[in-house]
Amino acid sequence: VKFELTILGSSSATPAHNRNQSCQLLNIDEQLFLLDCGEGAQLQFLKYKIKSGRIKHIFISHLHGDHYLGLFGFISSMHLQGRNTDLHIYGPPGLAEIITLQLKYSESVFNYMVHFHEISSDQPEVILDDEKVYVETMLMSHRIKCYGFIFHEKPKKRKLRKERLSEEIKLQEIIKLRNGEDLLNEDGSIRIKNEDVTFPPRPLSHFANCSDTIYLEHLAPQLQNMDLMYHEATFGDDMGERAEKTFHTTARQAATLALKANVKKLIIGHFSTRYRDLKPLLEQAREVFPNTYLAIEGENHNISGEKTNEIPTEESSLED
Amino acid sequence: VKFELTILGSSSATPAHNRNQSCQLLNIDEQLFLLDCGEGAQLQFLKYKIKSGRIKHIFISHLHGDHYLGLFGFISSMHLQGRNTDLHIYGPPGLAEIITLQLKYSESVFNYMVHFHEISSDQPEVILDDEKVYVETMLMSHRIKCYGFIFHEKPKKRKLRKERLSEEIKLQEIIKLRNGEDLLNEDGSIRIKNEDVTFPPRPLSHFANCSDTIYLEHLAPQLQNMDLMYHEATFGDDMGERAEKTFHTTARQAATLALKANVKKLIIGHFSTRYRDLKPLLEQAREVFPNTYLAIEGENHNISGEKTNEIPTEESSLED
Repeated sequence: VKFELTILGSSSATPAHNRNQSCQLLNIDEQLFLLDCGEGAQLQFLKYKIKSGRIKHIFISHLHGDHYLGLFGFISSMHLQGRNTDLHIYGPPGLAEIITLQLKYSESVFNYMVHFHEISSDQPEVILDDEKVYVETMLMSHRIKCYGFIFHEKPKKRKLRKERLSEEIKLQEIIKLRNGEDLLNEDGSIRIKNEDVTFPPRPLSHFANCSDTIYLEHLAPQLQNMDLMYHEATFGDDMGERAEKTFHTTARQAATLALKANVKKLIIGHFSTRYRDLKPLLEQAREVFPNTYLAIEGENHNISGEKTNEIPTEESSLED
Repeated sequence: VKFELTILGSSSATPAHNRNQSCQLLNIDEQLFLLDCGEGAQLQFLKYKIKSGRIKHIFISHLHGDHYLGLFGFISSMHLQGRNTDLHIYGPPGLAEIITLQLKYSESVFNYMVHFHEISSDQPEVILDDEKVYVETMLMSHRIKCYGFIFHEKPKKRKLRKERLSEEIKLQEIIKLRNGEDLLNEDGSIRIKNEDVTFPPRPLSHFANCSDTIYLEHLAPQLQNMDLMYHEATFGDDMGERAEKTFHTTARQAATLALKANVKKLIIGHFSTRYRDLKPLLEQAREVFPNTYLAIEGENHNISGEKTNEIPTEESSLED
C-alpha cells in the first residue's frame, strides 16, 4: 500500500539550475493526485516515465504562472493520448475561465469530461471526499488568493488473521470482523473476539501541501501530526525581509511551523533561483526541525513505507 | 553578418522522443525574432544558453497549444529577469485576450510594455517594417486560423573599397557612394564611378516560416526564391490521408512546394510523435528536393554564412 509523494518541480518563479516549476504527484494506494502543474509538467512525466492517464484529480494552489502554466498542455496531451475518463480540477476562481478561453480559441473538444471545482470559501472545507481519501483546503496568505491542500486517508478495514479462522466462516461474518465487530452467539455472548482474529488496520497517513505563502503560525493546529508536510521555502535566512515582502517563507520558518505542528517529516521546495546550492536552506531548516528534506525532482517520499513495522505481513492478512 | 535560424522545438501536438514543441529563433544581424513559443520554450533557452532579453518581436502562427503555451511563461520570466524594453507580439485574434486574462488573475504588471499586433487580414500584409527587415504574412490552411511569416532583409548599402579612395573624401560623398551613386564633377561628368570604388552589398536573405497547414501549392509564387523555407511536415508518405484529414502536410508535399517555389534550402519539422526515427521523412523529402534538412533542436542554419563567397573581406569594406 502506497502513500507516496513524487517531486516533479522545485523552482519558484522561473526555472533554473535544472529545477522546474512547481509540480508534485501524490500516489495514495495507486490513486494519483497532481498538485500544481507548472510549465513543462508533461515533460517531467516523460522524463520520469510516469503515466498521466491514471490521474483523476488535479489541485492548483493559485494562479501565478509557475503553478499552473503546464495545465493546459497537460490536459490537452491526455486528450491526444486517448484519455476517456473524467478529470476533476480544483483551484481558485479564474482557472476555469482561463482554460475555457484556451479551449475556445484552439477550437478543441476533449474526448473526456473536465469538471472544474472552484474553491470559493476561505474557511477550511472538504473539496473531495472519495472512498479512500478526503481533501481539505487551507487558506494560505500570498500576493494573490492561494490555497493549501491536506490529504487524509480514510479509516481502513482490519486485516484478517486467516490462520486463526475456520474455513466455514461466512462472507457476512468476514465483513463484520473487518469492520471491527466481534461475532456473537445467538444469546448475545461473544463467539469470536475481533482482536483475536484480526490485526488493526495500517495507520492512516496524512499529507499537507503548503504552497506559496508568508509564514502562517496559525496553521499549526490544522497541520497537527501530519505524516508529511510539504512547505514552500523560497528563501534562506539571508532574505528574510524579501520573503516577507513577497509573501514567501524562509526555510527556517517552514521548519518552525513543522515543529509547532509536530509533523513527522518536512519537505521544503519552491526555491528561489538565487540559490544554486540548496545546502544552506536545508541546514537552516534542520537546525529547527531535523527531519527536513529538500524537494529534489524525481525523488519519492513514501510515508506508508516508513510505517511498515506496524503492518502485518502479506501472508497473514487479506489486503484491502 | 548573420541571418540564422535556430531550431528550439520540432514536435507536433505533444512532446516526445526528446523533441519539444514548436519554437524557432531567427537572428538577423543580431536582431532576434521568436517564431512560435510552445510549452517549455524558456527551458530550451536555458538549455542552449540563449539570452531572451534581446528578442523584440514574437510571432505566433496559431492558437493550438503546441505553438503558444510557452508564451506566458516566457514573457513573465523576461519580466522577472529585469527586462524593461518594449516587446511586440504578433498573432491571430484571441492571443491578446488569453494573455490579458492570465495577467489579470496573476495580478501581474510587467516592468516593460507588451504591444499586441493581432493579424486580422487573410491577404498577405506587412505586419512589421523595421530598419533592416520587413515581415509579411501568409494565410495557411489549418483547422483553425493560422498564419505563416516571411522575413525579408531590406536592401543594404554598398561596401566601400577603402584602398581605392583618397583620404580627402567627404562624408557626404561616402553616403552617395554607399547608396550606389557615382560622384560627379561640377559639369555633371563622372568624377568617380561607383563600381570602381565599391563592392555590391551582400545579397539579401529571405526566410519563410510555414507553420501548420495542409499542402498549399498556391503559395509557391509568394515563396519564390526564398533562401530558406521552414515547412511543417507532420507526417510521412504512410499517413497521407491523415495529413489531409488533420490539415497537415507530408514531408514529400513540403519538398514539392520547395521545388515549385524554387527555394534554396528546406527545413522540415513539427513531426508527429509516431515517428521516433525521422530518417524516412527526410528521405521522402529529399527524393523531391535534395537540399532538405530535418529540424533538429539546438541546430543553427546560417543562410548568410552560405553566401560568404559573395561578401568582400572585412579589411576591404566598411560594415553596415
